Amino acid sequence: MKDRKLLMIPGPVEFTPDVLRAMGMPTTSHVAPNFIEVFGRALERLRQVFLCLSGQPFVLAGSGTLAMDSAAANLVEPGDRALVVNTGVFGDRFASILERYGATVTQVRAPAIGDAPPLDEVESALRQADYKLMTITHVDTSTAVGVDVKGLAALGRAAGTLVVVDGVCAVAGEEMRQEEWGIDLALTASQKAVGVPPGLALLVVGPRAMEAFRQRRTPVGSYYADWTHWLPIMEAYEARRPSYFGTPPVNLIWALDVSLGQILAEGLEARFARHRLLSAAFKAAMAALGLRQVPVSAERAAHTLTAVYYPDGVDSRLLGHISTAGAIVAGGLHPAIKDRYFRVGHMGAVTPSDILATVGAIEQGLAQAGYRFSPGAGLAAAQAALT
Amino acid sequence: MKDRKLLMIPGPVEFTPDVLRAMGMPTTSHVAPNFIEVFGRALERLRQVFLCLSGQPFVLAGSGTLAMDSAAANLVEPGDRALVVNTGVFGDRFASILERYGATVTQVRAPAIGDAPPLDEVESALRQADYKLMTITHVDTSTAVGVDVKGLAALGRAAGTLVVVDGVCAVAGEEMRQEEWGIDLALTASQKAVGVPPGLALLVVGPRAMEAFRQRRTPVGSYYADWTHWLPIMEAYEARRPSYFGTPPVNLIWALDVSLGQILAEGLEARFARHRLLSAAFKAAMAALGLRQVPVSAERAAHTLTAVYYPDGVDSRLLGHISTAGAIVAGGLHPAIKDRYFRVGHMGAVTPSDILATVGAIEQGLAQAGYRFSPGAGLAAAQAALT
Repeated sequence: MKDRKLLMIPGPVEFTPDVLRAMGMPTTSHVAPNFIEVFGRALERLRQVFLCLSGQPFVLAGSGTLAMDSAAANLVEPGDRALVVNTGVFGDRFASILERYGATVTQVRAPAIGDAPPLDEVESALRQADYKLMTITHVDTSTAVGVDVKGLAALGRAAGTLVVVDGVCAVAGEEMRQEEWGIDLALTASQKAVGVPPGLALLVVGPRAMEAFRQRRTPVGSYYADWTHWLPIMEAYEARRPSYFGTPPVNLIWALDVSLGQILAEGLEARFARHRLLSAAFKAAMAALGLRQVPVSAERAAHTLTAVYYPDGVDSRLLGHISTAGAIVAGGLHPAIKDRYFRVGHMGAVTPSDILATVGAIEQGLAQAGYRFSPGAGLAAAQAALT
Repeated sequence: MKDRKLLMIPGPVEFTPDVLRAMGMPTTSHVAPNFIEVFGRALERLRQVFLCLSGQPFVLAGSGTLAMDSAAANLVEPGDRALVVNTGVFGDRFASILERYGATVTQVRAPAIGDAPPLDEVESALRQADYKLMTITHVDTSTAVGVDVKGLAALGRAAGTLVVVDGVCAVAGEEMRQEEWGIDLALTASQKAVGVPPGLALLVVGPRAMEAFRQRRTPVGSYYADWTHWLPIMEAYEARRPSYFGTPPVNLIWALDVSLGQILAEGLEARFARHRLLSAAFKAAMAALGLRQVPVSAERAAHTLTAVYYPDGVDSRLLGHISTAGAIVAGGLHPAIKDRYFRVGHMGAVTPSDILATVGAIEQGLAQAGYRFSPGAGLAAAQAALT
């Protein structure tokens, strides 16, 4: 039997064979003409995938946290006010990062774990102070809550604040129209719906945010994240000119170019629809098995992952049973409920077969854990949604 | 004919097939037991390769500049004094990074490009102020100057200053005995002599530097580089426990573990000797062709790369001719002489065959550029050194 299990966590996810082949190619020089062409094209494609043709893309060696760090370090100056729309652990993290660079942070918190702050609360918070920027976690990976980015961004724009979207578990999976929705900065990490192994922080910065960066009166707090160094490099690669600041991660950028090409070949509308469909199928399966989700409503649930409470009598040992049955899923991440739920990622190159195999493995794991249910009920529900 | 050229720049370099295979493996979860085992082992191996069993290793997603950033951000507090031993562009860079985090920087500069500051000048500079730390660029990639790290570190220790070694073009190629030589922090990037594609910043931090970090009175200036987040993660992986702060670059860490295993199998003493031998062979070839090097003496020349002035009548178009002949070498990097020299990396998995092929390609390129020399003279000199 094949010994590899399906990787169904909220990143890293399953990657396509072509992406993995690009990872394993003999590395070339970061200023070789063929690599300059690939990096330049990847930057152009990033703009298209973020739906922000007016934006400035950045591709940096680092994790998703570096993308958040880069946004905060370059946009915040000591004393600036920032508003964080908090739907979980990654809202907390953005608040910590903003504070590190001198921001005074106000948080609008979800009324409960699994929920999101109502728009009118955010609107009223925006009225109470002059915020330089607001941050929105499109999908909080700790709760699987997805928010109304379009509505929240409109509030931010109306208030004259820069709108920063942490799209780490969302970009290229969830519908996000950066330019049309007035988002000033969107960011993600490679290993999520963008479909590239971990190691790249990705940002697209709109004109208002770039202008705010140019108007800074103080140096950027982090040297490594400072756009002063990276902007000329991104511009040079896109103009197909050699340049150097830090050595770009050649193989990861090859893989990025391949994956972005695949994303654009699928088409963003089709991709958003596929993520909605597979999410619906997986969630239907969980409901048919009698399992409750962390998000308080279907409207609040992300399409790129699902967070599911263990049923009574079942605990985190379920993860091992599911793994034995062939799929790796993730444990809880939100400290308040960490041991009470698990998370399943279904984004990027994920297929209907992956969904069915994962539901099957979960059913087998539940049976192993002694949970009583009708075997195949989850699979039938998923199949009904898929067909 | 094979269409791939030898990659003989000062990083990224030629990587082994096993390292590239690890890069292209289907990614697994960053908390999967088999990945935890690999990451934990890579950390242990890093300690052995840095020859610092008392050190705390850090493996971070980022470029070599992040490794420098991480050292400066975590060790410097505003108002601290730092001494930079400057032998080229990367001394300038370390000074900029230290200043970004609030250090007052004094530089001891080489008397000329291609030289290094004499030890007695460094000793006298160390006497003039109370420096929290000093930085040494083991090999400055811009000049190919290698310094007497052992001697400089001894001066730093005697003065009671923390000794930080930028080993980006050195670690696992040049002789460096971190613990024995009293080096408090050594750092490098994956794509150099460590032999892994670009994307990893690597540090080993000794007990005195960790203690200085623990005694900080102010938060670390950079959020992403802050050891407060990463230390528990490194400790957890080494204890083979799952943990999470930012998603580690799984494939790069697989590749790192493979390469570190190959390095230790070769043995560090044998590896240092191989780098010395291949460097001597390459440098003998350049001399036999009548080409002058940037370092002012053999004693000042690194063993991991060679910086060579173009002969009269030849300019940077030579690089294209060498590439056509099958080897990619790098142009100049030091702004003062950028267009007057080229650089050849010979580190990591490099073989005698690579050296001969590169010398051959350079001879062909020189002939193409109209330079008059006796064809084969470089090859004969290299071969004499190798045998």
